Amino acid sequence: MLGEFDIIARYFTTPDSEPPMPGVALGVGDDCALLSPEAGHELALSVDTSVVDVHFPGDAPPEAIGHRALAVALSDLAAMGARPRGCLMALTLSHAEPDWLERFAHGFRELGRRTATPLIGGDVTRGSLSIGVTVIGDVPAGQALRRTGAAPGERLAVTGSLGGGHAGLRMWQAGGHDLADPLLAAYLTPTPQLAAGQALRDLASAGLDISDGLLADLGHLCRASGVGAVLSPDDLPLAPSLDMTLGREAALHAALNGGDDYQLLVSVPDAAWADAQQRCAACDVALTEIGRVTAEPGIRGIPETLQGVGWQHFTGGAS
Amino acid sequence: MLGEFDIIARYFTTPDSEPPMPGVALGVGDDCALLSPEAGHELALSVDTSVVDVHFPGDAPPEAIGHRALAVALSDLAAMGARPRGCLMALTLSHAEPDWLERFAHGFRELGRRTATPLIGGDVTRGSLSIGVTVIGDVPAGQALRRTGAAPGERLAVTGSLGGGHAGLRMWQAGGHDLADPLLAAYLTPTPQLAAGQALRDLASAGLDISDGLLADLGHLCRASGVGAVLSPDDLPLAPSLDMTLGREAALHAALNGGDDYQLLVSVPDAAWADAQQRCAACDVALTEIGRVTAEPGIRGIPETLQGVGWQHFTGGAS
Repeated sequence: MLGEFDIIARYFTTPDSEPPMPGVALGVGDDCALLSPEAGHELALSVDTSVVDVHFPGDAPPEAIGHRALAVALSDLAAMGARPRGCLMALTLSHAEPDWLERFAHGFRELGRRTATPLIGGDVTRGSLSIGVTVIGDVPAGQALRRTGAAPGERLAVTGSLGGGHAGLRMWQAGGHDLADPLLAAYLTPTPQLAAGQALRDLASAGLDISDGLLADLGHLCRASGVGAVLSPDDLPLAPSLDMTLGREAALHAALNGGDDYQLLVSVPDAAWADAQQRCAACDVALTEIGRVTAEPGIRGIPETLQGVGWQHFTGGAS
Repeated sequence: MLGEFDIIARYFTTPDSEPPMPGVALGVGDDCALLSPEAGHELALSVDTSVVDVHFPGDAPPEAIGHRALAVALSDLAAMGARPRGCLMALTLSHAEPDWLERFAHGFRELGRRTATPLIGGDVTRGSLSIGVTVIGDVPAGQALRRTGAAPGERLAVTGSLGGGHAGLRMWQAGGHDLADPLLAAYLTPTPQLAAGQALRDLASAGLDISDGLLADLGHLCRASGVGAVLSPDDLPLAPSLDMTLGREAALHAALNGGDDYQLLVSVPDAAWADAQQRCAACDVALTEIGRVTAEPGIRGIPETLQGVGWQHFTGGAS
């Protein structure tokens, strides 16, 4: 039987052969990890917990579960325009199955490698499967992209496409398990928009990720900034084949309310719009205008039939 | 029914009337929290997950559960000699019961207030009760108290007293629910040794907390430092009334193997010993010599009957 320390040593410790990441003074293996902050930078910190059968299906491929747990946390760094510096994982497991752990750790570490996010600490406990990931990033002092700051007249824009997360969840539940399908990939192995977040940081006036659903998170942005918004549903960048898979009405509903789309919503002044599009294009990320910020509070332009509730725990969940 | 955002706003957001903590540029309410690191300091980070009926009894007072979840994480900062800067909480709940949440949040925030550890972020998810706490501290660059560095001939010493955590757990299980009892308090509402850790940082050559049990954690220190140790069981500072409660043999066994004692074990050169004792006395913390570091690996001086296994998940648990 694998013990807690065996699991950490075998699956979650960087081999001595790998060069240490810049800024990591001490990684896994002591009471704390140590990070050396870069001068003139603030630290951005966030935690996201992924619970089996709440946030991901228990029978999903372990690689995808590992990838997803880190991706959803990194999306919060992306939303602040922060650069990842490291992460800590609080892994709760009901049993320690070596093959599952090997594949899970591979998915987690592979995304960590691609995004330069070393695992610098964590713990392993026994209980119902859940993965808590704390991400640490940095951002030049005073330049983080917050939810406050959107001003009337600015363009509202989203990265990537919408509705794929919701459709992918439905697809998995209906028995579709082809991870190469872009909708399923959007749900199970999302890509955090780190490059776009950093590219947009000094151009956008406000931004956040839309993991709770576009309308719910737009509501958060509007309340934080003291503004409103008008959206053009016809301009929403629907995930590829979403129309065909769900039908037009359900596709729009998923794009507006579905949640699990790890994209960014930003407010961009007209003067910065061309630059914002160019920088996103350079990152190979679409940036699509979906509406405008208004002085009048509230969100307009969405027929009532397309308004659902964003994902919230304890109140009945997603649309 | 309380929603996720209601819970965060009601129980875990600092009132606007409270002054912001120094260094916290942005707290709960955006995608990430923002911390301003102090020049010349490294960040110390650690995560600890407390799972119901694994780490604490589900029927414990909610204030104690909240206190304990933060305390066990802060103990890792203490072990590095770090000063707390903030924490993030990943709270997983099976249901949202306002009275329970109010009391839980009170216990958590009260210890946060006493230790200057503001809650700067977190998330709330649905599932079996578990509390993941990430703590962030800082320490002058290069001065963290690590597990490496203990040298032969140095004194091994522990803060506070031993065995209380184990005895308190047994007491709770036997129906003793008087939180004023020092043994029960050692288990349910431990005090992280933050002041002692910072006081000992530049005097001790190595240190760690002994939450896994003294012998298990001494083993970690010895392996990391490439040394051994000889202990004097008669010198162990047993928790008050431990002898009487458990009998001599079981008391020593609990002190050596019990776990749940959130004390520090340090290795101190002779030349620094008097200073170390004085500084701990100034913090009102006992510092007791329990043995010496040896060049020869292995731990000697403990009769075999007193050797148990430290707490490990997945391999059968504590002694």
